[in-house]
Amino acid sequence: MNWQPPAIPALATHLEPALRLRIDQKTKPPGSLGRLEELALQFGLMQATTAPELRAPVVLVFAGDHGLAAEGVSPFPAAVTVQMVHNFLAGGAAINVFARQHGLALRVVDAGVAADLPPHPSLLDRKVRAGTRNALHEPALTAAEVGQCLARGAALVDELAKSGTNALLFGEMGIGNTSAAALLIGALTGAPLADCVGRGAGHDDPGLARKRAVLERVQARHPDVSEPLAALAAFGGCEIAMMAGAMVAGAARRMVIVVDGFIVTAALLVAARLQPAVLDYCVFAHHSADAGHARALAELRAKPLLHLGLRLGEGTGAALAWPLLVSAVGFLREMATFESAGVSTAEAPRA
Amino acid sequence: MNWQPPAIPALATHLEPALRLRIDQKTKPPGSLGRLEELALQFGLMQATTAPELRAPVVLVFAGDHGLAAEGVSPFPAAVTVQMVHNFLAGGAAINVFARQHGLALRVVDAGVAADLPPHPSLLDRKVRAGTRNALHEPALTAAEVGQCLARGAALVDELAKSGTNALLFGEMGIGNTSAAALLIGALTGAPLADCVGRGAGHDDPGLARKRAVLERVQARHPDVSEPLAALAAFGGCEIAMMAGAMVAGAARRMVIVVDGFIVTAALLVAARLQPAVLDYCVFAHHSADAGHARALAELRAKPLLHLGLRLGEGTGAALAWPLLVSAVGFLREMATFESAGVSTAEAPRA
Repeated sequence: MNWQPPAIPALATHLEPALRLRIDQKTKPPGSLGRLEELALQFGLMQATTAPELRAPVVLVFAGDHGLAAEGVSPFPAAVTVQMVHNFLAGGAAINVFARQHGLALRVVDAGVAADLPPHPSLLDRKVRAGTRNALHEPALTAAEVGQCLARGAALVDELAKSGTNALLFGEMGIGNTSAAALLIGALTGAPLADCVGRGAGHDDPGLARKRAVLERVQARHPDVSEPLAALAAFGGCEIAMMAGAMVAGAARRMVIVVDGFIVTAALLVAARLQPAVLDYCVFAHHSADAGHARALAELRAKPLLHLGLRLGEGTGAALAWPLLVSAVGFLREMATFESAGVSTAEAPRA
Repeated sequence: MNWQPPAIPALATHLEPALRLRIDQKTKPPGSLGRLEELALQFGLMQATTAPELRAPVVLVFAGDHGLAAEGVSPFPAAVTVQMVHNFLAGGAAINVFARQHGLALRVVDAGVAADLPPHPSLLDRKVRAGTRNALHEPALTAAEVGQCLARGAALVDELAKSGTNALLFGEMGIGNTSAAALLIGALTGAPLADCVGRGAGHDDPGLARKRAVLERVQARHPDVSEPLAALAAFGGCEIAMMAGAMVAGAARRMVIVVDGFIVTAALLVAARLQPAVLDYCVFAHHSADAGHARALAELRAKPLLHLGLRLGEGTGAALAWPLLVSAVGFLREMATFESAGVSTAEAPRA
């Protein structure tokens, strides 16, 4: 493991009074824009300015396959990973629709798809291996592969920074990756596996029971894993490890990290164990319907913006939340002040 | 009262199986887009098509003054109503920022502002009277004025329909109108006034206590009011009555009615008492931080899309939720199907 997580700058907390003043001078009752005011403050502290902006946002859909899929942990066949990658590249998936709607660039990152993919302008080939090993029988990744994933994720963000991007929306695709996410969350938080395992892409009750039974056996195969890199090696996947590296690198460059659902949150949990300050740069987009997400969010004390019963992944929750981030920056930059608009402020409390 | 609420067409429930099939054929696990799938279904049933669309949406900010403001029920002086109308017309308010962001037309409707307003391309002069009377001493509106408000609201929607608009986002401005809304909700639901009164634009504890005390006296001045038109006459305001008429007219034309926060919900409660089927055409944008909103939402069995601690009004919550409605229509119209994209569906459950 050669990759060292880069340092993450501290928030510009000295600007908090100036930011709060600017927010409160806008023509609205103080606090009346709720969570949007919190976002505006956060972006100002992150970017060390009282006039934050969001530039050239990119949705990154990290794709990878999982050897564990052979155990029937998903209701979908493993081939769906590569099929959906082709769907992303053809523009037909949900994330494509939402990215187009919001003017978001979209890149599909091949972190570890178990198929050869022809070149495509929207595809970034960062494949570390063609799917992870089956974690029921052996470690999903070697330590060297984990390091490669992290480093390639970070390098990819460094490349994006050159074109001025300062906001990344994280998404993923990988049949079997809710299983890897559940195992990672269990290992890193110590929570009972039962609290971390959900229906994924839509298991019925027997399917959920089967998934749980398999994951209990996987966990027993890798006892005493609690360190983030060891957990990534034990359970995978390539796309999760690569997201963790990309998140740390993004925060190191003061980028906004928009966290999608269950699997992206598992990647963030890994990233936060490597470099806790990454959390200062995160916006939690939505609360997934997958049961395990609540456990991971609680661990991170996260308050997602949306509660819409989503459980699709791909970055769809991040894309759906995106306009709220734009609104937060927009009100701060564009609204008139009480003074400029000639609007009276609240009267002093009466005796 | 000459205005008769128009008939509202029934939902095209015979299309529900076809709509559900179309939703489930998209390349995503069934149900995984959560609330967006419910919206897509609702729009299809409303518009009687499996390919619903949203056309030429308009934010309508209904403005009116309240005689009750003289009793100190708001922390802001009554002059703020007209000052904010000028701010809307100059483009400097929060709703202007969000409407621009989402490409929403915005019209300010003078339903009853207590000032003369010069003509402006974005201002619709529908003034019924220059502010309501003080409900502490007399009925806020006459029965004839209530009828005028309802009729003018409906006529305004009929005009908008000519330009192809099929979605209306409701907002309002009026110092004192959280008091009118609380009184209306109390009268129409029978809930204790204490459950309906919140901090409005931001009362501190003494301000809230004073507001409650005034509203208890107003309620005592108008006992046994439970019928919607009588309640509007007793408590006002012009902007609330005009919204109620506009909502019924919108639903009669199968338009999407996007319901903002506390005051708009009070108007909807009135509208639903006049014509219950209006609710079939409503999308509840957000759950306001104002305490009374929860009571009104419960009465309507409403599940708002957003929970962001907003309490600004102006239609800001409706505008912030708008992109979710666009996403719902977008996924249904634009996503590939499993068949068209060559993606495998879920495997049959294993034995």
